[in-house]
Amino acid sequence: MSSSSPNPQVITCKAAVAWGAGEPLVMEEVQVSPPNSMEIRIKVVCTSLCRSDLAAWESHAIFPRIFGHEASGIVESVGEGVTEFKEGDHVLTVFIGECKACRPCTSGKSNICQVLGLERKGLMHSDQKTRFSVKGKPVYHYCAVSSFSEYTVVHSGCAVKVSPHVPLEKVCLLSCGVAAGLGAAWNVANVTKGSTVVIFGLGTVGLSVAQGAKLRGASRIIGVDNNPQKCEKAKAFGFTEVVDPSSYQEPIAQVIKRITDGGADFSFECVGDTDMITTALQSCCDVKPEMSAHYGLFLMGRTLKGSLFGGWKPKSDLPLLVEKYVNKEIQIDDYITHNLPFDDINNAFDLMKEGKCLRCVIHMPR
Amino acid sequence: MSSSSPNPQVITCKAAVAWGAGEPLVMEEVQVSPPNSMEIRIKVVCTSLCRSDLAAWESHAIFPRIFGHEASGIVESVGEGVTEFKEGDHVLTVFIGECKACRPCTSGKSNICQVLGLERKGLMHSDQKTRFSVKGKPVYHYCAVSSFSEYTVVHSGCAVKVSPHVPLEKVCLLSCGVAAGLGAAWNVANVTKGSTVVIFGLGTVGLSVAQGAKLRGASRIIGVDNNPQKCEKAKAFGFTEVVDPSSYQEPIAQVIKRITDGGADFSFECVGDTDMITTALQSCCDVKPEMSAHYGLFLMGRTLKGSLFGGWKPKSDLPLLVEKYVNKEIQIDDYITHNLPFDDINNAFDLMKEGKCLRCVIHMPR
Repeated sequence: MSSSSPNPQVITCKAAVAWGAGEPLVMEEVQVSPPNSMEIRIKVVCTSLCRSDLAAWESHAIFPRIFGHEASGIVESVGEGVTEFKEGDHVLTVFIGECKACRPCTSGKSNICQVLGLERKGLMHSDQKTRFSVKGKPVYHYCAVSSFSEYTVVHSGCAVKVSPHVPLEKVCLLSCGVAAGLGAAWNVANVTKGSTVVIFGLGTVGLSVAQGAKLRGASRIIGVDNNPQKCEKAKAFGFTEVVDPSSYQEPIAQVIKRITDGGADFSFECVGDTDMITTALQSCCDVKPEMSAHYGLFLMGRTLKGSLFGGWKPKSDLPLLVEKYVNKEIQIDDYITHNLPFDDINNAFDLMKEGKCLRCVIHMPR
Repeated sequence: MSSSSPNPQVITCKAAVAWGAGEPLVMEEVQVSPPNSMEIRIKVVCTSLCRSDLAAWESHAIFPRIFGHEASGIVESVGEGVTEFKEGDHVLTVFIGECKACRPCTSGKSNICQVLGLERKGLMHSDQKTRFSVKGKPVYHYCAVSSFSEYTVVHSGCAVKVSPHVPLEKVCLLSCGVAAGLGAAWNVANVTKGSTVVIFGLGTVGLSVAQGAKLRGASRIIGVDNNPQKCEKAKAFGFTEVVDPSSYQEPIAQVIKRITDGGADFSFECVGDTDMITTALQSCCDVKPEMSAHYGLFLMGRTLKGSLFGGWKPKSDLPLLVEKYVNKEIQIDDYITHNLPFDDINNAFDLMKEGKCLRCVIHMPR
């Protein structure tokens, strides 16, 4: 049975609009369209700032824009054809959706939906238009989520229902960072008991990889970061040791090999840097240290896998992660270093730029 | 119980010695030392020419040298401490050995033994010396096997016993090429039923990947090679279609994407070329064709794995492959395009250079 919300109207609400690269967000009155066919409009409850919001804000050419993609909220209205959600449902947003019909969605080989995959043009998947405007001027989306707004519109394939009993101000982290790290350890690398793991970059993703590796029984989990503050925090997440590359004369890959009797079994690059990927590969267990050619690294049996959202299929898998959180099988709370009201959203950007936070959760007005 | 052969002497026999890069091999009288501790001396029965012999012969700086690493033979004598073999045993040589004690050998995570891994200096693993000489001048080994000689000495960890009933002139191909391809499909990629597979390069390794993929129930197996002769042969090995890049205007990765509704599930690079690896990655299933950055290829969920010898652990796994051959579960015979006497070994190099052979099996004098 499909029944769209009765005659939803344009909503005017507050949103943090980015007008230019690196410029502080400005609180604006924005108009949010009603949900189109197969879309839902969400009242955002909490949204956290992820490093990719920061990177896109610093570099992307698409403005004005509403960032934010790691969020929880409550369905305000549903468009035509939506049967999966109704008004009042609690949801997580997801930046890669799941149509459940395309080849990746049905094959089990990829979580990158052909229909609702990563959106990069600032538009909605369905009609390549925006649902936001300020004084009649269109405002672009980010990752088809745009949660730095009291209300937002997303495709129903880009939201996942959660029980009304789970704390939305915590589980919003499963919408991106924490799930990405756990999935990298579990789905992508399939970390095994007793193994040695090295993790480059101790942000939310890196710490979540450690959490995932620890739960799989890894016996050594080595963190690498040149921010001493991050290093201190790391042990609570399962790291058995942390090294700061700046305190060594030798290249860090050599340090890792030396302290691990030939290299790590699994190496995770959680920074997003091509050179760091090479370093991560070089830190893995191998035999002939003099063999440094790119091609050779793979020939010697190493594997380079990448993942977006840790390989999770959001509709199928996110509810299981939420359940694990509720059952205290995974933890989320310790990633949240700051809670800020929506009006202070620019502070979150400053904290992240200065490396002073893991996750700032931004609480929307009630 | 360990008993070395009683007082083995230096053997003088015929070997095909490479004196310089790309120069025809010269049949020489060589002296072959008795096996040292934990080594065995083998009377080579058959040896085939692999492309890596050819590549090393064309480019390597280590001369004089005896090439050959894909071989079968009969144990002539054993050194001190050898309990696994006795005179008369039938064996396959392997170019990466298995000590069964080091971290890769015991961990299950790698087949690259820390003690008997790929040898690149032309010397024996144990003492960094050679076992061959011509008129008192040392002659270097290749991959610690050097089977282009009537007799050779290998570490006992670099040989695998086979039943005296299996045809040595066939199973020598399991010593490298055929096993590498089957292992790439089974161990490394783990090709799944119903999947679409693309294979770049239709030599012995590429054809063996196809055989492996077919046995796993892949529904489409697409070969890519610009040698029309190879393309013709391919269908017998399981290929459902073969494309020649030179007959298309568009880049071959685009061709593959077009004919496979978005890309292959598994893509194998069986040439050994860095640019081809990128093409192979680009030929895999993804969503956003405009995304061509190296980093992005991995982020979108593709995996780059490499393998040496298809990930097989020789001691543990090769006997199973031989058994599969005996039980007709895998085929080997069709890879053998030429059988040549040892004296005609240079013809094998010519045939391979000209792309006219898959495997030339060279039969040593009785």
